[in-house]
Amino acid sequence: MRIPNHIGIIPDGNRRWAIDKGLSKESGYESGIDPGLLLFKLCEKLGIKEITYYGFTVDNTKNPREQIKAFTEACINSVNILLKEDAELLVVGNTKSPMFPKELLPYTTRRVFGKGGMKVNFLVNYSWKWDLEHLKRSKSVSNNITNQIQSCDVSKMDLIIRWGGRRRLSGFLPVQSIYSDFYIIEDYWPNFKEKHFYDAINWYDAQDITLGG
Amino acid sequence: MRIPNHIGIIPDGNRRWAIDKGLSKESGYESGIDPGLLLFKLCEKLGIKEITYYGFTVDNTKNPREQIKAFTEACINSVNILLKEDAELLVVGNTKSPMFPKELLPYTTRRVFGKGGMKVNFLVNYSWKWDLEHLKRSKSVSNNITNQIQSCDVSKMDLIIRWGGRRRLSGFLPVQSIYSDFYIIEDYWPNFKEKHFYDAINWYDAQDITLGG
Repeated sequence: MRIPNHIGIIPDGNRRWAIDKGLSKESGYESGIDPGLLLFKLCEKLGIKEITYYGFTVDNTKNPREQIKAFTEACINSVNILLKEDAELLVVGNTKSPMFPKELLPYTTRRVFGKGGMKVNFLVNYSWKWDLEHLKRSKSVSNNITNQIQSCDVSKMDLIIRWGGRRRLSGFLPVQSIYSDFYIIEDYWPNFKEKHFYDAINWYDAQDITLGG
Repeated sequence: MRIPNHIGIIPDGNRRWAIDKGLSKESGYESGIDPGLLLFKLCEKLGIKEITYYGFTVDNTKNPREQIKAFTEACINSVNILLKEDAELLVVGNTKSPMFPKELLPYTTRRVFGKGGMKVNFLVNYSWKWDLEHLKRSKSVSNNITNQIQSCDVSKMDLIIRWGGRRRLSGFLPVQSIYSDFYIIEDYWPNFKEKHFYDAINWYDAQDITLGG
């Protein structure tokens, strides 16, 4: 079976899930924490080498204040939970903005927890503009763009899985997503089921690799 | 009805279509020319403002010589056909490489044909690396990335339609595809049918816009 090296996760639909339950929008984010750990465990079992969670973006910080508070807390809690696992953790995002949570500053260079193993990247206060703008400060003459962006420690993604039915990248790592296969799950992220993950993995196995050829 | 301003077209599956017909791989490209004009006419009818065809890429020029000849000719012919329409044509690609067809050099700045109207962009010998590398030469302090890449005359795409079943961007305009909705058609491009286009348009109408919010 062809297993992706690196999976990107767009955990969308938290607010719509909350609305469907008759809850306030922001209360959806907390219910997105457990699925993150479940997914990590499944990836570990399958020997996935790297996983990237799309936490929140600079765009998202234009949302109402109570939502910002809720998704920021959910990101902090998610990272704290993963610290107890065997993982090599990296938080990627614009630390110079006040929206970046101070609690996550220690993880903005990659750190090994437990026995290490899977690379786990967490995008927090991330922005594709911030990511690409870094190229303007690059002194390198190489055309290896991947090494000259802010998110240079995140490798190319083989498979992107998006929950919540939308078929778009919404600014998720424009360089690392160049050749990614893109799998959509209609269910909202808080409704995460093992089956979602295995459906995506099986679908990926049936795709061919061309890398633009 | 919510009509996209700008549609990106990934006309994939030419070679697989040819193989299915028992033809040589390269003979599929010629059969991709008529669909391009048909699609243009449908966009015109609907009042679409801009359309971008993914012609061929620098990656593609690593293919066998007879394929390179065939897809280069198909691109030249497609552009020549569109010159007879009311359109504002632009060819975008790396003109400094010998793989860029000289016949298309006159169209690398936008030119108006007939009564003008729809912007039609054609990516020819395009490369996402070439596109983004331009940022390294930018003197601007603005974070408006879109104005500082090689393809700056191509606006953000609202809808991307890909033929041939693959669910990936394959290096198609990484900046302009950031917020695009992505619609996949299983049929190969030479099997283009009006229904494909209207299915995509109707699907797009049912999506909501968030622009990362």
